[in-house]
Amino acid sequence: MTVSEMVNTFGNLGYQAIELNHAQKVLLQMKRDNAKIFLSFTSNMVTSGLRGLFAQLCSLKIPNILITTSGAIEEDIMKANGEKFDIGNFDADDVELHEKGINRVGNLMINTEGYMKFEDWILEALEKCYKKKKRWAVSELLKEFGLMLNDTNSILYQAAKKDVPIFCPAITDAGLGFHLYLFQQKHPDFIVDVVSDFGNILLGTSMDDKKGVIALGGSISKHHAILATLLNGGAKYAVYMTTASKTSGSMSGATTSEAKSWGKVKDESDIFTVIGDVTIMFPLAMIAALEKLEEEGLL
Amino acid sequence: MTVSEMVNTFGNLGYQAIELNHAQKVLLQMKRDNAKIFLSFTSNMVTSGLRGLFAQLCSLKIPNILITTSGAIEEDIMKANGEKFDIGNFDADDVELHEKGINRVGNLMINTEGYMKFEDWILEALEKCYKKKKRWAVSELLKEFGLMLNDTNSILYQAAKKDVPIFCPAITDAGLGFHLYLFQQKHPDFIVDVVSDFGNILLGTSMDDKKGVIALGGSISKHHAILATLLNGGAKYAVYMTTASKTSGSMSGATTSEAKSWGKVKDESDIFTVIGDVTIMFPLAMIAALEKLEEEGLL
Amino acid sequence: MTVSEMVNTFGNLGYQAIELNHAQKVLLQMKRDNAKIFLSFTSNMVTSGLRGLFAQLCSLKIPNILITTSGAIEEDIMKANGEKFDIGNFDADDVELHEKGINRVGNLMINTEGYMKFEDWILEALEKCYKKKKRWAVSELLKEFGLMLNDTNSILYQAAKKDVPIFCPAITDAGLGFHLYLFQQKHPDFIVDVVSDFGNILLGTSMDDKKGVIALGGSISKHHAILATLLNGGAKYAVYMTTASKTSGSMSGATTSEAKSWGKVKDESDIFTVIGDVTIMFPLAMIAALEKLEEEGLL
Amino acid sequence: MTVSEMVNTFGNLGYQAIELNHAQKVLLQMKRDNAKIFLSFTSNMVTSGLRGLFAQLCSLKIPNILITTSGAIEEDIMKANGEKFDIGNFDADDVELHEKGINRVGNLMINTEGYMKFEDWILEALEKCYKKKKRWAVSELLKEFGLMLNDTNSILYQAAKKDVPIFCPAITDAGLGFHLYLFQQKHPDFIVDVVSDFGNILLGTSMDDKKGVIALGGSISKHHAILATLLNGGAKYAVYMTTASKTSGSMSGATTSEAKSWGKVKDESDIFTVIGDVTIMFPLAMIAALEKLEEEGLL
Repeated sequence: MTVSEMVNTFGNLGYQAIELNHAQKVLLQMKRDNAKIFLSFTSNMVTSGLRGLFAQLCSLKIPNILITTSGAIEEDIMKANGEKFDIGNFDADDVELHEKGINRVGNLMINTEGYMKFEDWILEALEKCYKKKKRWAVSELLKEFGLMLNDTNSILYQAAKKDVPIFCPAITDAGLGFHLYLFQQKHPDFIVDVVSDFGNILLGTSMDDKKGVIALGGSISKHHAILATLLNGGAKYAVYMTTASKTSGSMSGATTSEAKSWGKVKDESDIFTVIGDVTIMFPLAMIAALEKLEEEGLL
Repeated sequence: MTVSEMVNTFGNLGYQAIELNHAQKVLLQMKRDNAKIFLSFTSNMVTSGLRGLFAQLCSLKIPNILITTSGAIEEDIMKANGEKFDIGNFDADDVELHEKGINRVGNLMINTEGYMKFEDWILEALEKCYKKKKRWAVSELLKEFGLMLNDTNSILYQAAKKDVPIFCPAITDAGLGFHLYLFQQKHPDFIVDVVSDFGNILLGTSMDDKKGVIALGGSISKHHAILATLLNGGAKYAVYMTTASKTSGSMSGATTSEAKSWGKVKDESDIFTVIGDVTIMFPLAMIAALEKLEEEGLL
Repeated sequence: MTVSEMVNTFGNLGYQAIELNHAQKVLLQMKRDNAKIFLSFTSNMVTSGLRGLFAQLCSLKIPNILITTSGAIEEDIMKANGEKFDIGNFDADDVELHEKGINRVGNLMINTEGYMKFEDWILEALEKCYKKKKRWAVSELLKEFGLMLNDTNSILYQAAKKDVPIFCPAITDAGLGFHLYLFQQKHPDFIVDVVSDFGNILLGTSMDDKKGVIALGGSISKHHAILATLLNGGAKYAVYMTTASKTSGSMSGATTSEAKSWGKVKDESDIFTVIGDVTIMFPLAMIAALEKLEEEGLL
Repeated sequence: MTVSEMVNTFGNLGYQAIELNHAQKVLLQMKRDNAKIFLSFTSNMVTSGLRGLFAQLCSLKIPNILITTSGAIEEDIMKANGEKFDIGNFDADDVELHEKGINRVGNLMINTEGYMKFEDWILEALEKCYKKKKRWAVSELLKEFGLMLNDTNSILYQAAKKDVPIFCPAITDAGLGFHLYLFQQKHPDFIVDVVSDFGNILLGTSMDDKKGVIALGGSISKHHAILATLLNGGAKYAVYMTTASKTSGSMSGATTSEAKSWGKVKDESDIFTVIGDVTIMFPLAMIAALEKLEEEGLL
């Protein structure tokens, strides 16, 4: 049985199975309708191993705009430079891990050493950028970084090659922030301009564009994708995937339905929320959609 | 029965009741031990009505540093200027709400009109700031805003009065971001410097300070609090309250235990995670702790 | 600040705080309106330490009918006979615990030894019952057990004293089931009649009675309470408290809203669902309601 | 890409993806090792459309023992007699549905009318059974029902054909309970013997058998599967799939790890817990396992 066939059978099951089936149809419809697609994801998805899939989607020009958090940028660069993250378990002995220099994110394990190699790379990269100009919008900086990498599984690399801008509204919120700070201490006229980057995401699509949002997980990344489309008249399509529940009132748990009240998605939108682990839900829906897009000659 | 007595009885119950009891003890211990306290919260908690409690905590100098998201700043200012948010329900008809100009966040309802009044206020405030200087760290800007307000229930007002800095690493991720962008269009030399603000949060405490983290909800706010203490040697105390589960691998669900592997909290730390709605859990634990601090003459 | 005052302030907060406030009002209204109250709970709540509160509620004649699972019966008897359960933590080393003869339920620890004492007591109790008659409805048997205990903190004891029947539709699903089986091997004409007990719960209230359901947690206990009221015309009042989400489609996550489609609660019902840990939510709402009932002279 | 290939790639992803990959391997190992398999599921999974898969698994003799709740029995019979359940949505207007005679379970819709046809069938079936003998263990009764059906997608039918006993410890907890009660009113010597059925499940496997538990969802069904294997020395293999979190202390959220402390699964067991919607997780893992069993000639 193929993934595509299984996602089809989900159309006959209840609960989240049919929601996943709907989500896949909306993913498909976004592309058929030539919508501009905002793909937002949290850094733990890059940690978890979805990095290669995101990079592949960029190389296929599925998303037009990416939005993520600083940790995702950092880990993408670390992995492009050869770092590997092991999979352990959720109930590991954390004191023991710390003594071994291993950092845990859920059931994933990251070596402290990898962060040191990252430091060397980023300082050199910032020097190169600084020589070009002093004031950088975040997405410009991330594109420069991408062009310095050489890894077809890297999100930054593929996005840079295909001119897919990456927005990261909280760029300082990771080790990267510390390196930016140290660099600015040396070069006080070095400026990371988050305000002008907000202009960039706004001008990235127009009121007339049909817009689609694929929000994986929650947090700032999801909120930013919704905000950016809202200010341009709202999205026509939206797929949210999350483990959070709407009863918490959090952005992670906010549903596509709530978005209608904000004009965040248009009333007539094709919108679905799937509750579940994105590491399982997203590959299922996306790969099934890609298979159909290929059949239709839309890839 | 007083709240304090009830939280005491939770010490004899299982599941999250005893975790809440532990959390209250850690809150108490942080203050007794004179730790520098980082309080992080997401904007939905300000929406939900915890704003007054956060403002009161600032006026009592309970937290030394606040970390939050842009929406919280925006709503604090809106409420200081007289806006009121109604409580509705999670299953409201969102299309109908949109037609009425009402925006929904969980079971809370916000009028579109309120956002227009906010626009007037913020543009005037930015003009005043711009006259003083051109380049602002985020926390400096938020302090200026606080000094312009006049509402004892306002977080920005109380924090400004008591010199509690407010950090907001993703300052553009709300309507506020749009206003900053429009203002910068008019004044291209106006700069919001997120990088130097990362220096401010780092220098806000030292390696030698005992540090405590109270992280309500997850997202960037929680991560930033943990990161800032980690780079100064780690927190000694940590209380996380969240509705998210650790099995998702998200920052919202990350437990105090995981933080040990990162050196994010020190191994010997007094740390507890309470799973549940912060609107209920935090007032319970905090008010019980305040009652005891008062008895001990520590308020 | 009293618990009652805190629950009042929850009326001004969003998310689950206001739902808890509503729940408390419905608890109050049920009694004022003289409704027949079905209280259902799962066995883990007895493990967790809510046993004393349930017993106290029976002694105050708050519920008219109890519904629970076999584990709750077993643990109530064990505790009445002096057994104590320790509180440990969710991430204990389970292999080590097993070697020590300790059994874990969440963060609660139970000694294997306690089960042996239970065996002695139950076999003697069954002999006494068998001498009276051969065929027992479950609730009759549980009343006999209650009358043999002598512990004011025991649910079975207080329920028996106050003529509150206890229904347990899956009576064999615990160690108790094994003892019943061994006893029946010796006395093949000993019959536990679950079918006639279904008649007892049906006849426990009439179509004309106003009925209220307080369902703590989910599972069979909750379903049975809803079913029994439905077959008598539906409940007028319902309060559900659970950690499960409605998106799972499970009975534990089923909301009071869904119940309307089944006629399980009447359309005009006063009904609320609170998402959160029952060990915290229920004492808060119930104690606040009891304080008001006392003020009104209704206790 | 086939389902089997996708489940293989999950072995390289974090969070629940790798847990699902592990779960699939344990399912495979159970059969290779010739373990006796207990498959437990809650009635909402039959509602949701997994009925056909469960029936197919019985016809392949994958499980040796089934454990479920009364609603699953009822719906299996209703569907075997031609009833169809529609898929709607979680936020339907429940009062409107009730007026139309539609009952909602999550996003599934059931017609009231179907329950009336069920009544006719079950009363006739009970008459036939009663003519054979007066006292029935539950699993004997369910086998009789299965033999009266004629639907290859029916769980009861396939289980009866293949001699897979179905245990249902809370047989009265559904409309079926009401019909049993009415029947017993007419025939007071008609007895449904739950106690002797507990003996049947115990004798269904021996201490020497290797045992495996597949627990889908929680509640009584899961607990009963664990209890029955525990009393025979514990399971060697266990796969739990659930949306509930262990922090709640509920049986639904109880993990395979906790089971080790109870001796419920043997210490050396191959055990995994997958957090997520069973309608998606179980078909993925099971179909991937079936494909491999077929390759190995084990089907």
